Amino acid sequence: MDRRKFIKSAGTATAGVAAATAISAPAIAQDIKDMVIVSTWPRDFPGLGIPAQRLAARITELTDGRINVQYFASGERVGAFDSFDEVASGNAQAYIGADYYWTGKHKGWAAFTAIPFGLTYTEIDAWTKYGGGQELWDELAGEFGLKNLACGNTGVQMGGWFNKEINSADDLKGLKMRIPGQGGEVIAKLGGSSVSLPGGQIYENLVSGAIDATEWVGPFNDFFMKFYEAAKYYYWPGMHEPGAQLAMGINRGFWDSLSPTDQAIIEAACNEENARTMAETNANNGAYLARLINDHGVELKEFNEDIYAAFGEAAQEVLEEARDHSPLSKKIMDAVVDARQEIGSWTALSDMAYVQKRNEVMGI
Amino acid sequence: MDRRKFIKSAGTATAGVAAATAISAPAIAQDIKDMVIVSTWPRDFPGLGIPAQRLAARITELTDGRINVQYFASGERVGAFDSFDEVASGNAQAYIGADYYWTGKHKGWAAFTAIPFGLTYTEIDAWTKYGGGQELWDELAGEFGLKNLACGNTGVQMGGWFNKEINSADDLKGLKMRIPGQGGEVIAKLGGSSVSLPGGQIYENLVSGAIDATEWVGPFNDFFMKFYEAAKYYYWPGMHEPGAQLAMGINRGFWDSLSPTDQAIIEAACNEENARTMAETNANNGAYLARLINDHGVELKEFNEDIYAAFGEAAQEVLEEARDHSPLSKKIMDAVVDARQEIGSWTALSDMAYVQKRNEVMGI
Repeated sequence: MDRRKFIKSAGTATAGVAAATAISAPAIAQDIKDMVIVSTWPRDFPGLGIPAQRLAARITELTDGRINVQYFASGERVGAFDSFDEVASGNAQAYIGADYYWTGKHKGWAAFTAIPFGLTYTEIDAWTKYGGGQELWDELAGEFGLKNLACGNTGVQMGGWFNKEINSADDLKGLKMRIPGQGGEVIAKLGGSSVSLPGGQIYENLVSGAIDATEWVGPFNDFFMKFYEAAKYYYWPGMHEPGAQLAMGINRGFWDSLSPTDQAIIEAACNEENARTMAETNANNGAYLARLINDHGVELKEFNEDIYAAFGEAAQEVLEEARDHSPLSKKIMDAVVDARQEIGSWTALSDMAYVQKRNEVMGI
Repeated sequence: MDRRKFIKSAGTATAGVAAATAISAPAIAQDIKDMVIVSTWPRDFPGLGIPAQRLAARITELTDGRINVQYFASGERVGAFDSFDEVASGNAQAYIGADYYWTGKHKGWAAFTAIPFGLTYTEIDAWTKYGGGQELWDELAGEFGLKNLACGNTGVQMGGWFNKEINSADDLKGLKMRIPGQGGEVIAKLGGSSVSLPGGQIYENLVSGAIDATEWVGPFNDFFMKFYEAAKYYYWPGMHEPGAQLAMGINRGFWDSLSPTDQAIIEAACNEENARTMAETNANNGAYLARLINDHGVELKEFNEDIYAAFGEAAQEVLEEARDHSPLSKKIMDAVVDARQEIGSWTALSDMAYVQKRNEVMGI
C-alpha cells in the first residue's frame, strides 16, 4: 500500500476521529481573538492605570488565552482623549476610561461616570446593575457602535487642591480649575473657569500656574500626583464626583463576534475589577491621607454649608442643561435623579446613619 | 483487510493525528469536574437564595461547562447548618452561606461575615481584598481544609423586628430574639436571649411566640419573610451586621485540583456576585421599605443614642471574648478593629459626609 492510498483509506475509516479533530483543532485556532485595549490612564498609575492593566491581563487569564489582550496606556497608541474614536472606528477593540470625557459628543455620557450631587459607588452600582442604568447606557453606547460596562469606581472624591482657602462661593470667581464634566460646568456657573486635562498633564499646569486648582480623585490617587507641591489646601467632600464609575467601552462589532462564554467572561472581569478598584482605593485612602498631612504639610479643609448650597444650585442648572440636550439625555438624567431620591433615601437610613452612630460610639 | 487489522495500521500511520486527538479529547473529558454546592439559603429566596443560584450557574457558564455545578438549597441535600461539615468532609465541593454560622467551631469566623459595630460593605470589601483580610481568612479556613471567598453582601442591616417598642436597653431584658453570631451575644449581655435559626424557620417561631423579635437583613429580604404579620416595629440602623459578607467555602482538595484558569474563574465569579448581591439589595431596599410601611402598616423606628451606647459597651465585651478564644482569633479581631479605625475614618470623610450634605441640599 503506498502512503497516499493508505492515508485515503485511513481517512475514510477513521471518519469519526477525524471529524472530532476537525471540530476541535480549527475551533481552537479560530477562537483566539486579538483585543487591543487603549486606555485614558498613564501606565502604572496607582488606582487607575494599574487596575486597567490588571483587568486587561485578567481577560486573557480567564479566557485561557482565547482572547489575547494587548493593552496600551494613554499616549502609547493614541492620546487619552482619542480613545473613544479609536474604538468606535474599530481601530481598537476597547477603551478603558471615564465616559464623562465624551460629553462633547453627547451630554448623556456624564451620568455613567458621575454628575455633581449624584450617586455614590454603592448607589451607582445598584442603579447600573439593577435599577435600569445599564439599559440606558446600552442605548446611548449603541448610538456610537459601542457596548459599555462598568469596570472601576473611585468612590467619593475629595473636593480638590486649591492654592488659597475657599470660604465662600465668591472665592471661586476667576479661579482656573482642572475639573472635567459637569463638575467643571458647576465651577463655571460660579464664576470660575474649568479646564479638562488628562491626568498626565495636570501637575505641570498646576506648578506653572496655568491653573490655580485641580481635583483628581482622593488621597491614594492624588498622593502620587504630587499636587501638594503647588497647592496646600485639600478640600472635602467633593460634590462633583461622588462615585465616578470607570468604563470599558467595547467596539460593538467585536463584542457581537464573541461567543456567549467570552462575553460573559468580559462582563465578569469588568464586574470584578469594578469592585476591586473601589476596594483598593478605600483600603488606601486613609493611610495616604495621613501621609499627605504628616509628611507634606497638606491642610485638610471641609467645604462649608454655604458653598455646598451654592454648588447645589449651580448643579441643578447644569443638570437642566444636560436634560435639554436631547430626549435620551433627558431620560438618562431623570433616571439618575429618581435613583438618587430612592436609593439615596436608603443610604441615609443605612450606611450614613450606621457609620455616624458607630464612629461616635467607638470614638473614630 | 479485516477491520481489526485496519484500525491497528491506521493507528500507527496517523500517529500525528492520533496524538493530537489523544491530547485534546481526553483533556476535554478529564477537564469536566463535578462541583456540588450546598447552600444555607432556601431555594429561590430573594436577595440570598437567588444570588447563590445565580453564582452557581455562572461558574458553569464561565467555564463553558468544564465545571459542572449542581446546586442544592438548604434542606435539599443537607440542612443549612450542616453545610460546613458536608464540604469540609469532602462530601460536597463548596457551600454558600454566612461564615458566622460556624463560630461554634472557631470564634474567628465571625469577622468574615460581620461583627457588631464592625465594617460596612465598602469597608469589609476593602479590608478583605486589599487590607489583609483574605490572608487571615485563608489562614482560618486552612485549619478546616477550606478555601473561602466573599460572594455576596447584604449591606447595613436593619436592627430587626420587635413586637414592642425598644426605648432603653432595659426593654431588651428577657427578650427572646433570633440573632446569630456576635450580635446575639450582644443581646444576651443586655439581658435578652439570642436564638440562632436558619431563615426558613424564623417566621413560624415569630408567629408562634417562641421568639419575640428577629433580625434578618433589610427591607427587600425581609419583605418576603412576612415578619410584619407578627411584629410591627422595624428598627434602624442595625448595630449587629453592618455589612454581612457572604461566603463560598470550597473544599481545599477540590480547589487545589483545579487549573489556575478555573480557580481564577471561580474567584472572578465570586467577586462579581459579591457586588451584584449588594447592588440588587441596595436597588430594592428603598422601594420595599415603602411597601412595608404603606401596605403593611410597619412602624419605622430609629434606635436612640442610649441604646446605641449600651450596644457599644456590650459589643466591646463580646469582642474581647472573641479575642480571648485563640491567638488566631485575637489576630483576626485586632485586624478588624484596625481596619475599622483606618478605613472607617475615611468613610466618615467621604461617603458619610457627602451623603449628609447632598441629601440636605437636595431635600432627600
